[in-house]
Amino acid sequence: MPGSLRIVMAQLNLLVGDVDGNASLVLEAARRAQNELQADAIVFPELALTGYPPEDLLLRPELYRLVDRALERLCEARLDIDLVVGHPRRENGRSYNTASVVRGGHVIACYDKQCLPNYAVFDEKRYFSAGTEPAVFDLRGVPTALTICEDIWEPGPAAAAAAQGARLLLNLNASPYHMTKWRQREAEVAQRARENAVPIVYVNLVGGQDELVFDGDSFVVDGAGQVALRAPAFDTGLFPVDLRDGAPVPGECAPVLADDESVYRAIVLGVRDYVDKNGFPGVVIGLSGGIDSALTLAIAVDALGADRVEAVMMPSTYTRDISIEDAKREAELLGVRYTMIPIAPVFDAFRGALDERFQGLSTDITEENLQARIRGTLLMAISNKTGAMVLTTGNKSEMAVGYATLYGDMVGGFGAIKDVPKMLVYRLARYRNQLGEVIPRRVLTRAPSAELAPDQEDTDSLPPYEVLDPILERYVERDESVGDIVAAGFDEATVRRVVRMVDRNEYKRRQAAPGVRVTPRAFGRDRRYPITSGLGRGESG
Amino acid sequence: MPGSLRIVMAQLNLLVGDVDGNASLVLEAARRAQNELQADAIVFPELALTGYPPEDLLLRPELYRLVDRALERLCEARLDIDLVVGHPRRENGRSYNTASVVRGGHVIACYDKQCLPNYAVFDEKRYFSAGTEPAVFDLRGVPTALTICEDIWEPGPAAAAAAQGARLLLNLNASPYHMTKWRQREAEVAQRARENAVPIVYVNLVGGQDELVFDGDSFVVDGAGQVALRAPAFDTGLFPVDLRDGAPVPGECAPVLADDESVYRAIVLGVRDYVDKNGFPGVVIGLSGGIDSALTLAIAVDALGADRVEAVMMPSTYTRDISIEDAKREAELLGVRYTMIPIAPVFDAFRGALDERFQGLSTDITEENLQARIRGTLLMAISNKTGAMVLTTGNKSEMAVGYATLYGDMVGGFGAIKDVPKMLVYRLARYRNQLGEVIPRRVLTRAPSAELAPDQEDTDSLPPYEVLDPILERYVERDESVGDIVAAGFDEATVRRVVRMVDRNEYKRRQAAPGVRVTPRAFGRDRRYPITSGLGRGESG
Repeated sequence: MPGSLRIVMAQLNLLVGDVDGNASLVLEAARRAQNELQADAIVFPELALTGYPPEDLLLRPELYRLVDRALERLCEARLDIDLVVGHPRRENGRSYNTASVVRGGHVIACYDKQCLPNYAVFDEKRYFSAGTEPAVFDLRGVPTALTICEDIWEPGPAAAAAAQGARLLLNLNASPYHMTKWRQREAEVAQRARENAVPIVYVNLVGGQDELVFDGDSFVVDGAGQVALRAPAFDTGLFPVDLRDGAPVPGECAPVLADDESVYRAIVLGVRDYVDKNGFPGVVIGLSGGIDSALTLAIAVDALGADRVEAVMMPSTYTRDISIEDAKREAELLGVRYTMIPIAPVFDAFRGALDERFQGLSTDITEENLQARIRGTLLMAISNKTGAMVLTTGNKSEMAVGYATLYGDMVGGFGAIKDVPKMLVYRLARYRNQLGEVIPRRVLTRAPSAELAPDQEDTDSLPPYEVLDPILERYVERDESVGDIVAAGFDEATVRRVVRMVDRNEYKRRQAAPGVRVTPRAFGRDRRYPITSGLGRGESG
Repeated sequence: MPGSLRIVMAQLNLLVGDVDGNASLVLEAARRAQNELQADAIVFPELALTGYPPEDLLLRPELYRLVDRALERLCEARLDIDLVVGHPRRENGRSYNTASVVRGGHVIACYDKQCLPNYAVFDEKRYFSAGTEPAVFDLRGVPTALTICEDIWEPGPAAAAAAQGARLLLNLNASPYHMTKWRQREAEVAQRARENAVPIVYVNLVGGQDELVFDGDSFVVDGAGQVALRAPAFDTGLFPVDLRDGAPVPGECAPVLADDESVYRAIVLGVRDYVDKNGFPGVVIGLSGGIDSALTLAIAVDALGADRVEAVMMPSTYTRDISIEDAKREAELLGVRYTMIPIAPVFDAFRGALDERFQGLSTDITEENLQARIRGTLLMAISNKTGAMVLTTGNKSEMAVGYATLYGDMVGGFGAIKDVPKMLVYRLARYRNQLGEVIPRRVLTRAPSAELAPDQEDTDSLPPYEVLDPILERYVERDESVGDIVAAGFDEATVRRVVRMVDRNEYKRRQAAPGVRVTPRAFGRDRRYPITSGLGRGESG
């Protein structure tokens, strides 16, 4: 079929470090693309054989031995389809982030990534040397070049490939999700297409890997930068695109998800993959009657199914009746196992044990933290006994200002809404309730409270979330100073107080469970702050 | 005095982020060097104005504004001595790791670091662009060039400076400690001196910053690579070196410390600085009667003084009498406040609370962890009530294989011996006892036990530490594979078991407190592993 070409975008969910398993998934996809889709080539994501990001596994010589063996397997399969597959490569003591084209029994082209991201969550210069050359190969008569992820965010590599005659670009990606990122990607790739008047096939990974979620969202643009085809977000699959006379034939464009739905689905995928890839039978969640744990419960059930989720309510004397009622109702609505364990007897035992040491000292935040730690210990006991992982329920606003108890409500293996600011927590809860009401309405309307002291409300310690969240976004995500934020119209005393809370609580975040990243800057690998820091300490206020 | 030149090495302890405070320390040192030591120049460490490493503070525009103001202060002081001071610098949207020479009211020379380390604990390519040019300036008739830390570990920058006529190199460093590193540094710097036949003044920071300790150990080599002068390790101070006709005059060489002493002192400094720089009044330590907590207690007292240290013994029914006796004796020998809180009543209360949920399930590791978590919660209660920080007592061997309870014995703000393998724990304890016996002898000789179950010993769960520690070093620090380690003579089943434990417990380490790095690869910023990883999962055994 001269002038006609079918390429499959393999939007796969791979497992970091499982080179052999990933190679099997690659081969299986290639066979399907060949036999069921009659494709000429199949394009896999960046570093498909190791998964992304392999982090310091890339420093282990054995990883490269496993990759070499996997590449041999791909060659030995001698398929009638070109496999374009990402993998790390070692030569003369240097490592490269590489894409190879396997045709028949041989690697016929090999490209080393030129632009190595070393910002935000990325550490590629820790591992890789940069390539310097385009790799152009003939794909059924079409001169085709490879680029890898960051390469397409800068003008150079695509231009160099076009200058060597490339009429089609295949871009392999492991581009992690954050809200609205799809828009940047499509704009950037369209720009490269227009600059060089070449179509670009953009293939991205799907799945959760620790803090990161990869959203797929693979797509094809034509030489004018128009989207010709878009694969769905958050789903795996093989998506064929036909090119006629070098131009992509317009195909199905999966609709772009609204922000709330996209964040919700990113978290569901992140939780599912963390739990499943780490082999947990299920999760256990402490319910408080508040919105954070209610939303986390809904996410867990959507991710794992009700039979893999257990809810535990651990009331104290400060817990209001409506909290107990609402927690029970949440468990009922979602159909999960529900246990109630009052903590008063344990609390009394602790107070007794500490009585002598605390003689003459007055009640303070110690007793509040004690309650949270009893709950954390009870959850961990259930986790140890059943094998289920504790899913933490803290949100990003709390994480930022340290409004959480270390070893208390912070216990757990993974944080579903760790990167979700409180105002967005409400939006996600409303979104989820639109699909079927699972969070009782008054959980969405009552004032948030930790219920660790009589009549406590979050606003006793924090500004209202309508004020707190934008300050946090400016300080944490945009690196604005106190002066910048005040200049934007916020009260100076409030801003100073918030910034101090953020700075002083770095030590808590350092011991926090990982959680799904959904904003442009999450706490974790994305924000590397010193615990010991004098910045801002000298300032007044 | 033609042909004669006096340079002061300023081995200072600075605070990350406290630009204004650091500038004051710099000015105070410069005035002393000028007035008391009659020096011509004073050389400060790398990034002295921000401290090292500032990490993502370098992404905040306000940091550069503070640095500019601090440089103005140094200029406005109009001293009669040259200040060679490290600081970050921003120009055209790029940041540089820079050293400036302040003479009178002006910056007369400015050098941007050329070799940016981006491995191990270093992330400099995350922040900085590389300089490309030497900076040679006239220092009282001697053509002098600047280099910064990593620059001197490669031949290029020194050679380029020499080619431009430099007859003296001033190398500004923030070189973190690990055991025997001084030897590598002196060998590397001597090599550069010989290659270019120039003397080199090597000035290093002192002090603890989160995981890192900077050991000072500043020195001078002559043009033949001979050490002419060495400042003491772990102490701050101003150390003058005289050069006559361009050659350093041999001066006092502080003795090199033996390994055990050097590790011990690094930890003492790391603990002191973490506690003091973060403003804690003192520390609280849970004693078990075992060697780890005994050593940690001694370190804490050496770092902070007995009046800032509290010891707590929390026996259970499994705690042997000799453990209680030894713990008490340790506290007595060191003169610290000692409290005993039996945990049985709290343990019983937890068992009661969980009774219904655990119906029909048998006793297992859950109950062991519960005891550890009760202790952690008690320590945190004392911490919350008094403001003292919990100092954790876990060693590197335990951290590696996960032989520790998350939210239990792992609670705390900082780990003194977190990077010390168990066999080295014994050596350090013996070293400390030579200075005065503070650890009862039988603590050093009895078999290690967690005492969480009847007659438990560490060797029930782990290989003997004589076998475990070398396997861990090979796997964790040298990236050897199972095959490599077996080939070196270790039992295959044991190696596989250890490697699996290391891999599976990454999630615990991710939530561990930071601790002092003393080996070439510590857990923390130094070793970035995925929690979710399939590497090795597929292998048999």
